Amino acid sequence: MTLDPDKLARTHVAALDQILGVPFKVLDDGFVRVVDYMGSDESIVQAARVSYGKGTKKISEDRGLIRYLMRHRHTTPFEMCEIKLHVRVPMDCWRQWIRHRTANVNEYSTRYSVAIDAAQKTTPDKWRQQSSSSKQGSQGFVDPRQGKSLSHEEVELQEYVRQVYQRRLQAGVAREQARKDLPLSTYTEAYWKIDLHNLFHFLSLRIDDHAQVEIRDYAQTIGCEVVAKWCPIAWQAFLDYRMEMMNLTKLDVEIISALAKGQRESAMALAEEFGWLKRGEKGLKRNRERSELEDKLRRLNLAIPWRD
Amino acid sequence: MTLDPDKLARTHVAALDQILGVPFKVLDDGFVRVVDYMGSDESIVQAARVSYGKGTKKISEDRGLIRYLMRHRHTTPFEMCEIKLHVRVPMDCWRQWIRHRTANVNEYSTRYSVAIDAAQKTTPDKWRQQSSSSKQGSQGFVDPRQGKSLSHEEVELQEYVRQVYQRRLQAGVAREQARKDLPLSTYTEAYWKIDLHNLFHFLSLRIDDHAQVEIRDYAQTIGCEVVAKWCPIAWQAFLDYRMEMMNLTKLDVEIISALAKGQRESAMALAEEFGWLKRGEKGLKRNRERSELEDKLRRLNLAIPWRD
Amino acid sequence: MTLDPDKLARTHVAALDQILGVPFKVLDDGFVRVVDYMGSDESIVQAARVSYGKGTKKISEDRGLIRYLMRHRHTTPFEMCEIKLHVRVPMDCWRQWIRHRTANVNEYSTRYSVAIDAAQKTTPDKWRQQSSSSKQGSQGFVDPRQGKSLSHEEVELQEYVRQVYQRRLQAGVAREQARKDLPLSTYTEAYWKIDLHNLFHFLSLRIDDHAQVEIRDYAQTIGCEVVAKWCPIAWQAFLDYRMEMMNLTKLDVEIISALAKGQRESAMALAEEFGWLKRGEKGLKRNRERSELEDKLRRLNLAIPWRD
Amino acid sequence: MTLDPDKLARTHVAALDQILGVPFKVLDDGFVRVVDYMGSDESIVQAARVSYGKGTKKISEDRGLIRYLMRHRHTTPFEMCEIKLHVRVPMDCWRQWIRHRTANVNEYSTRYSVAIDAAQKTTPDKWRQQSSSSKQGSQGFVDPRQGKSLSHEEVELQEYVRQVYQRRLQAGVAREQARKDLPLSTYTEAYWKIDLHNLFHFLSLRIDDHAQVEIRDYAQTIGCEVVAKWCPIAWQAFLDYRMEMMNLTKLDVEIISALAKGQRESAMALAEEFGWLKRGEKGLKRNRERSELEDKLRRLNLAIPWRD
Repeated sequence: MTLDPDKLARTHVAALDQILGVPFKVLDDGFVRVVDYMGSDESIVQAARVSYGKGTKKISEDRGLIRYLMRHRHTTPFEMCEIKLHVRVPMDCWRQWIRHRTANVNEYSTRYSVAIDAAQKTTPDKWRQQSSSSKQGSQGFVDPRQGKSLSHEEVELQEYVRQVYQRRLQAGVAREQARKDLPLSTYTEAYWKIDLHNLFHFLSLRIDDHAQVEIRDYAQTIGCEVVAKWCPIAWQAFLDYRMEMMNLTKLDVEIISALAKGQRESAMALAEEFGWLKRGEKGLKRNRERSELEDKLRRLNLAIPWRD
Repeated sequence: MTLDPDKLARTHVAALDQILGVPFKVLDDGFVRVVDYMGSDESIVQAARVSYGKGTKKISEDRGLIRYLMRHRHTTPFEMCEIKLHVRVPMDCWRQWIRHRTANVNEYSTRYSVAIDAAQKTTPDKWRQQSSSSKQGSQGFVDPRQGKSLSHEEVELQEYVRQVYQRRLQAGVAREQARKDLPLSTYTEAYWKIDLHNLFHFLSLRIDDHAQVEIRDYAQTIGCEVVAKWCPIAWQAFLDYRMEMMNLTKLDVEIISALAKGQRESAMALAEEFGWLKRGEKGLKRNRERSELEDKLRRLNLAIPWRD
Repeated sequence: MTLDPDKLARTHVAALDQILGVPFKVLDDGFVRVVDYMGSDESIVQAARVSYGKGTKKISEDRGLIRYLMRHRHTTPFEMCEIKLHVRVPMDCWRQWIRHRTANVNEYSTRYSVAIDAAQKTTPDKWRQQSSSSKQGSQGFVDPRQGKSLSHEEVELQEYVRQVYQRRLQAGVAREQARKDLPLSTYTEAYWKIDLHNLFHFLSLRIDDHAQVEIRDYAQTIGCEVVAKWCPIAWQAFLDYRMEMMNLTKLDVEIISALAKGQRESAMALAEEFGWLKRGEKGLKRNRERSELEDKLRRLNLAIPWRD
Repeated sequence: MTLDPDKLARTHVAALDQILGVPFKVLDDGFVRVVDYMGSDESIVQAARVSYGKGTKKISEDRGLIRYLMRHRHTTPFEMCEIKLHVRVPMDCWRQWIRHRTANVNEYSTRYSVAIDAAQKTTPDKWRQQSSSSKQGSQGFVDPRQGKSLSHEEVELQEYVRQVYQRRLQAGVAREQARKDLPLSTYTEAYWKIDLHNLFHFLSLRIDDHAQVEIRDYAQTIGCEVVAKWCPIAWQAFLDYRMEMMNLTKLDVEIISALAKGQRESAMALAEEFGWLKRGEKGLKRNRERSELEDKLRRLNLAIPWRD
């Protein structure tokens, strides 16, 4: 590595500077805004190239290099970018958010100050139904007429609980204790600082449709409004190679290979062996792994051998 | 290091094996219990001694070595011990707990299952008053007659909110959304696994009297009921060298040195220079750093030069 | 979650207890041996089920659950297992090993003790040739006659450097400084403790054939000799769903889908658009991403559209 | 917290911008230089104040707040500052450096590129003697005449080993293997990115005089040349409250309190009880903890009761 004796200037990303401090609204009263950042697509390249030493600077073009790093999970260069957000989030959602342990956090303290007087409200058309297929998901919406009464009841609940909270404060109860019955829907705020590699990990889990709608909205906003502007090349690589990537397990590969060779019988035999083709009275029994492969086959336009 | 060719047996701590799985009650409906562990005082010594190689095994006696490591913050050998707890904690308290990022956690999911039907209740005599000196603390208790009405109101609130929660579930609302207005006092459960070094860090912050009473109760229980049995030598060292240790800042040292030489004048001059002796109408103005030193001087039985 | 009031016994894995303390030889003078552990396949299941609360214990059978967790990267339950190894590794290899930051480490100190008197030696038939296709890999071996002289020279070098080291010590030079010119091939030893999730991450990177042969040998040994005995179900899931898994990028999926629909033309157009089909004098120019897809197509028995 | 609707500008620190990219020389051929950074003293305050919500902005003045945070180990606000350095360090020293696991690192790869052709050389007057009191330290210097021959021998050794390395490369040996006998004194380079809290932790351990001279030089340079310019208030607080702080253990406090009350007898009794006053033929036997207290008493100008 040749040491460049010139002084450096800090990395700037004009598109991000434009939105510095600007809140992007999420949910009914939440937001995400960028407070500060360090690095850019260029810093990823710079970090990757420290490995190569002098003389190899022109081998790969920047975009190609970033895409290569993403594709092959060379993650450390992405750690060289750092971003600090100011977020406003319902505590219920924050409970999920904070499980990501690699970030730096300073949260609004309801010990020190009176709790933020805002709770996330659900409108009549947004009460989601329990999913029948997934124990931890939702699908479709509750009838809006019923939704109306649920929303009405929620407003009442939140007002009532806030009054109790206020009465406790007026009675001289310590803030740290008065807050104990506040609803999880109460908004909190925090500074949240994280490097780009760990942010991508957060986004990959939270943009995913297994994530809960609320945190998904935040993740989408961070991804599309912030990261897409900050490190556009890395963001595109992330979409192409992680978000919209398909995983084929060893079992999937074996079955597809058999099918591609025209050996439908041996594909069926493999599926049988994996325990995927057990039959009940109504035909094939549900099998999670088999239906995962079916989804992949559909996306690849390949025929599903056990369906006629 | 000579490699001992014999097979090893796992470390066991009889006193801890005795309480494995036994819940220690905390708060009205919480608990802490040990599920599994790895290592002991002996493992700390073993890890420290890998540094010394063969031939030095007898230099220090185990207890002395552990105490030396603790005193000098040689923390890595303590990381060789690991413990897994099963805890039941109000979410409000868990919000503080989870801020310790170095633990492994699996928490009860209220997306997947119906929320635990228990919320932490405050009895009439346990409503703490807001501290007048600290924005984030409490002191003394609210009048128990008022406490009675606060407690009554809390029970009502918790019952009402639970009913709303149940109505949502009955209306088919997804669990992940129905839970959004549950009170922070709702109990949750988790497996929580951490190494001894990071556990000591957790305990030092959470046994401290700046910590909130609730989490302090958990920390006390973990320290006195669990760690004291698991690694008694390390636990005693932790008390002697961390919990009951006194920090003297550079400024404190300068003042005490001056006093010890009998130079009260120059001690006063130093305090003046530090901005500790500003006077208002009622004498010395409050100064946090000065009163911290006063507390230390009292504990050391040394005179406070600016008090007569 | 119903609290089981009975006392617990610690998890034991008989197959692992059998090899506790037994060194598995790696390289010419290195080893890996298990010193202690916590947890088992069963602990992974237990941790995952804390999410489901009571009543759902029988839904999935253990094996299916572990495989599901692995397939969907639900990683936290794997963090509930912990293992402590004693390893002996050349410093050159240790430099790569230590880059995994999530482990607990106590290493033999060459400040405190005289450096271990052993350096890793390469036999005449094991000098690997620089790879022509990868800047950071090797392929094939140097001619053994030349290898013989390289090995001879290495023995001489190591002996000479050791003598210099000894002369420094005899001259009273501090160990911390005397060691400064020791070769990277010098062996070091360490206790290395890590949870199963992070161990799988280590193994996935270090068993991979892009990893250097030396650390690959250690990773293979840890995987096949240790993890396979400790958590056999998780290990098999790791092989099926991570080690032998195939990633299809968004671009790969688009091309395969087109091919599967019989639209070779549009598959070619896509590849063209991706910049994969640039031609030089000798036909298609090298393109890393294209050749990655070609490898996948071969493994899937699918035809490569741009090859005739 | 009131949301400021105005756009933000990034934090800048003029004094640090001045030295961006400028290498500070360390050892004979090493350096440290700042590549980029995020945050400033102001960001620490901003992060701390998120806790306090609106209305409390003027309570503490910035300097006082930062000093309070440092004194009371409220560490998270310091995590909001991040810095990226480019360093050139002998591998021997880097082995210690890399043990700090909380940083982001991209290191020069000797698999990918030919090893940097520079090794750290010791001049005749800089060969340190093994400490007689500490197994892992040094004291004074070896006689410079002997030093001369040691230095001469080192130059020869380094040249010889480099030639062997070159011969291997010429013989076509892969770089990843050819490097295996390079001396630990060989320089490496890396980008190293860390937040201010973890940097202070690094500095507190590595500026300490138990640290090895070489890494101490780097730590000193980072502290005095970089952090002092970047966050001058936090740096001063770090010196006052951490680097030059004195820890009194519970045992120390008990003895000093007794002395301060004039109870020399009971102070002696305590020391006896602690096992600090064992006598051999030549008077008091060495006792590490006792001599640590003696050092503290001297610094405080307090008399040592067991010395007459």
